[in-house]
Amino acid sequence: MESPAGRTPAPGALPYYVAFSQLLGLTVVAVTGAWLGAYRGGIAWESALQFNVHPLCMIIGLVFLQGDALLVYRVFRNEAKRTTKILHGLLHVLAFVIALVGLVAVFDYHRKKGIADLYSLHSWCGILVFVLFLAQWLVGLGFFLFPGASFSLRSRYRPQHVFFGAAIFLLSVGTALLGLKEALLFQLGTKYSAFESEGVLANVLGLLLVAFGAVVLYILTRADWKRPLQAEEQALSMDFKTLTEGDSPSSQ
Amino acid sequence: MESPAGRTPAPGALPYYVAFSQLLGLTVVAVTGAWLGAYRGGIAWESALQFNVHPLCMIIGLVFLQGDALLVYRVFRNEAKRTTKILHGLLHVLAFVIALVGLVAVFDYHRKKGIADLYSLHSWCGILVFVLFLAQWLVGLGFFLFPGASFSLRSRYRPQHVFFGAAIFLLSVGTALLGLKEALLFQLGTKYSAFESEGVLANVLGLLLVAFGAVVLYILTRADWKRPLQAEEQALSMDFKTLTEGDSPSSQ
Repeated sequence: MESPAGRTPAPGALPYYVAFSQLLGLTVVAVTGAWLGAYRGGIAWESALQFNVHPLCMIIGLVFLQGDALLVYRVFRNEAKRTTKILHGLLHVLAFVIALVGLVAVFDYHRKKGIADLYSLHSWCGILVFVLFLAQWLVGLGFFLFPGASFSLRSRYRPQHVFFGAAIFLLSVGTALLGLKEALLFQLGTKYSAFESEGVLANVLGLLLVAFGAVVLYILTRADWKRPLQAEEQALSMDFKTLTEGDSPSSQ
Repeated sequence: MESPAGRTPAPGALPYYVAFSQLLGLTVVAVTGAWLGAYRGGIAWESALQFNVHPLCMIIGLVFLQGDALLVYRVFRNEAKRTTKILHGLLHVLAFVIALVGLVAVFDYHRKKGIADLYSLHSWCGILVFVLFLAQWLVGLGFFLFPGASFSLRSRYRPQHVFFGAAIFLLSVGTALLGLKEALLFQLGTKYSAFESEGVLANVLGLLLVAFGAVVLYILTRADWKRPLQAEEQALSMDFKTLTEGDSPSSQ
């Protein structure tokens, strides 16, 4: 399979799993839109519909785009590492900006309606996601994109960055599930237990969110699907190995 | 660090992380008990308090014990593989039996009160956890404890078993969060937004659940904390390598 001097072909099943993850992710976004359109009156900034901006932006930013940002090292296997890193960082910026719009929407809606902020488990988890996301992005930028950090420092930080990236993504999916549940119980109340169509649709959306999270995690954790070292990175890694007589770091 | 002929010492920080995970897990169980005792009237089988059996059993079985069952390969690093496997399987049996009591409690409570079953996202996720848990246990038993499966078949199935084990555990934690949220919104309603003490305690419980899930996942995924091969397993692995000229499987 491996040919250090040229392009490494993607493992056989990887493209199908990536395609499936994209199908799931786009379905999640579409079903969220359909739910808000069919049962919640759609979306607008200057009205009571402002609340609906919140779930849509969070699903697009912190679930779909964040998930895709984690997959770039599996999808763009043969691009230069630096190009892939920049794409990874930029997708996170896009995810963050969209999520910020969603965050402003819900605080603004609460302010106009006189509803208390940050009392629920959903909101506590959401703030935790935001703080961790921002910290992870800044630390990642410092270690991997600025030239200051040494090769050995990067190698030691990389596994932590990967773990926290996956954990923040999973917490985002969990927080979305809590928010969905909250929106259902506030709106439907006891009608939820009568299998109202909105409740069933939202439950299906919840399972789709779980499935998207699971497939992204599966692609990320398959050891044989990790990005192979490119020829020039292998040379660098070998030089480093010779210098330190330690182990070469695994690729991200 | 490694000494194939003798005992491999545990990596320096691992015992502290394991101790922290146990502290978190026991705190989660204690806070669940305190919440049910202080705000929900405690626990009994033959009364309206039967419902309270459900959250307590699920937290003990599918969160705390399931989490600990995943950690046995990190904690008992120098025991024979077979002993560790049996402990892993038995902890899952214990977790399943306790969770089954919790499941019967909620269905029985619903039946007595005339409440519909399985309408909520929490219940859908819960049933999914149960089905996956049982399937994973049976397939794991067939592959790893019965002597029928070949060494190469086990090696190929092992990464799938590890992934699904972690995914089912995380889904269990997520389902517990959904259930907690449901119990809060049913009981507190709009009082939740007034920062009632029960709501704050339950939010703290939610964050503790997230922290327990994260620490268990961290211990499981640290590459250098995986269980080292014992001397006799290394010999077997080498024999297999010679026979097949393939890669030796990584330890679980």
